[in-house]
Amino acid sequence: MRRAFYISDGTAITSEVFGHALLSLFPVEFEHTTVPFVETEQHAREVISQIKKSYEKTGERPLVFYTMVNADIGRIISSSPGINYNFLDQFVVPLEKVIGIPSKPKKHRTHSMHEKTYDIRIEAVNYALANDDGSNLKDFQEADIILVGVSRSGKTPTSLYLALQYGIKAANYPFTEEDIGDILKLPPVLRRFKQKLFGLTISAERLHAIRSERRANSRYASMPQCRMELREVENLYRKEKIPFLNSTKYSVEEISAKILAQTGLKRKKY
Amino acid sequence: MRRAFYISDGTAITSEVFGHALLSLFPVEFEHTTVPFVETEQHAREVISQIKKSYEKTGERPLVFYTMVNADIGRIISSSPGINYNFLDQFVVPLEKVIGIPSKPKKHRTHSMHEKTYDIRIEAVNYALANDDGSNLKDFQEADIILVGVSRSGKTPTSLYLALQYGIKAANYPFTEEDIGDILKLPPVLRRFKQKLFGLTISAERLHAIRSERRANSRYASMPQCRMELREVENLYRKEKIPFLNSTKYSVEEISAKILAQTGLKRKKY
Repeated sequence: MRRAFYISDGTAITSEVFGHALLSLFPVEFEHTTVPFVETEQHAREVISQIKKSYEKTGERPLVFYTMVNADIGRIISSSPGINYNFLDQFVVPLEKVIGIPSKPKKHRTHSMHEKTYDIRIEAVNYALANDDGSNLKDFQEADIILVGVSRSGKTPTSLYLALQYGIKAANYPFTEEDIGDILKLPPVLRRFKQKLFGLTISAERLHAIRSERRANSRYASMPQCRMELREVENLYRKEKIPFLNSTKYSVEEISAKILAQTGLKRKKY
Repeated sequence: MRRAFYISDGTAITSEVFGHALLSLFPVEFEHTTVPFVETEQHAREVISQIKKSYEKTGERPLVFYTMVNADIGRIISSSPGINYNFLDQFVVPLEKVIGIPSKPKKHRTHSMHEKTYDIRIEAVNYALANDDGSNLKDFQEADIILVGVSRSGKTPTSLYLALQYGIKAANYPFTEEDIGDILKLPPVLRRFKQKLFGLTISAERLHAIRSERRANSRYASMPQCRMELREVENLYRKEKIPFLNSTKYSVEEISAKILAQTGLKRKKY
């Protein structure tokens, strides 16, 4: 299997995302190795010898994706016997012409706590945890968005992703059997914040499967119960004109991106 | 302020990460707009007219970072009056030569639930929530790593990030005053899993500031209390040879990358 290395003097997240996106265009498997925080020439030379060994062992030149603020260390990595992609570099000079000022590489400008929105993101994570599953109703005032839906329709992972990636304060409220009763009506605690509500729904089959993992053969996980709950929440969304999304086929990344696109909610971090 | 657009027929996360990394090399501010899920030619033409309007209004050509699996839609975006960076494209042909097979672009191969590790990541998030702050001691057996440290030293956001990004099951255990007593000793429940422990510490000043946001003027937030707790945990880490990290200056992304590098823990997702 061909090796791919992701190397940086920071987290290497940028190298990983770029390299992964590029390699995902090919229907083959790769063996991935990330080496973050390569901040000394000695460490860089150790990485080079790791790349060399891999080449000698497999006979295939490893793919090396790297970003490096320190130019001296970058030069060492560029001497690796792998196929080296310093993918930011070739865009910088043309971009300098466009923007009209020289670039000023600075370490840890991305993915670090020196980003001015870092504290906002951590506050949003704490907010999401404190306002998960209707546990703390008093703080809805502060919410940027309130995710509603039946238990296990994807609210909690989505609220955490919105917080960590975008600094958005997402509360979440699960509709319970008590809420549903004969017909689900919008609980008064939510009506006050109706403009912040966003509904999630999911296919009955997928919900049944997820709930069965938790409590096999329970009424909670049964198909009739899943179908009934979903029918009630979807009726409510339509009746109250609450925007909503069927999460069945989407990842938290996709659900979050769709929520932002659909609501126009502004993220705190780019 | 110059506009930057991030456009894709998927989440646009790849475009954002690449564009953001590139723009962060310049000491200027940009106005960012993401347009994900551009899956029809009509939507693409709407985006083009948005870019045109921005250009006419500001007199500056917007920067357009895009990735597009559908070639027809990609061609429409490439006709925008902005400065267009289809940054994957120019790497694909050389990479095809290296790998020796043609690329097979496929929609939603990254950041979607069709990635085979998606369920592992969601399970890891649920695990982190269920095993947050020592609430559920019985599941340490299942943990890939157990983060330990005093209250508010960064354990919870780090465990959630490890789960969401890497599919790693991270439990976390806060050392409380009861644990500390006269001298902090390793609680028996942790000793059994000693090889999984990873310690976090933080500067007393930063801990004091974070705790003061929560409970101002409390003993919990006081400098002497913060200093005492940190001294005890750091002594314990050294005595028991528990690997540890001072999180004061690091983001969750950096802490997570450092933990992986320091422990050699294998991520479930790349």
